[in-house]
Amino acid sequence: MSNQERLLVEPAGSVGCCEPLAREPLSAAQAVELAKVFKAMGDPVRLRLLSLIASHDGGEACVCDLTGVFDLTGPTISHHLKVLREAGLIAGERRGTWVYYRVLPDALRQVSAVVSLDEIRT
Amino acid sequence: MSNQERLLVEPAGSVGCCEPLAREPLSAAQAVELAKVFKAMGDPVRLRLLSLIASHDGGEACVCDLTGVFDLTGPTISHHLKVLREAGLIAGERRGTWVYYRVLPDALRQVSAVVSLDEIRT
Repeated sequence: MSNQERLLVEPAGSVGCCEPLAREPLSAAQAVELAKVFKAMGDPVRLRLLSLIASHDGGEACVCDLTGVFDLTGPTISHHLKVLREAGLIAGERRGTWVYYRVLPDALRQVSAVVSLDEIRT
Repeated sequence: MSNQERLLVEPAGSVGCCEPLAREPLSAAQAVELAKVFKAMGDPVRLRLLSLIASHDGGEACVCDLTGVFDLTGPTISHHLKVLREAGLIAGERRGTWVYYRVLPDALRQVSAVVSLDEIRT
């Protein structure tokens, strides 16, 4: 399978890597995948959405719990949720009228592994 | 020390927060500061630069060690290093002809704390 095909068939946000930054240099391919997760988190609204979802009772939040927190339109919130979803950070499930979001731990686990400080020489 | 030199060696971007995402929602101000760090890491070249610096012998790398790795111009590499420096992720020190960079663990520590999975309910 070519890298191109692999990128197409793997689920969005499946990084499948990485060693701590300080252990060995990231490959170009690993860096491309991982940068998507960091980029998705590199926005204050998306970070707050992520923390609102992660810290909500039961570990999931309805869109209706999220929109009132921000002075932003529904479509703007939906756009940010889509970016988080495409980065593999959250998943949504429609139940009745609303979509409920929950944090997917795998992408956060990748971030956590990469920034592990065990081998950072200070 | 000139302002120019001071900018080169002093870390910028002190986040000074945060609780794990799943413990309590980030405040707007915390999210703004933290997003700067994630945004700086949300680029494949910058992630690779960070890992090249962190994993280099002695925990520091000369600009001369970094430029040959990428098919990018010196000014482009310098721009990416500046973004990492302004986010408080690296610090540079001029010694003779070259600037040597080292990873600052505080910003990575903030990222690590925020993505801590201990309280993520899956």
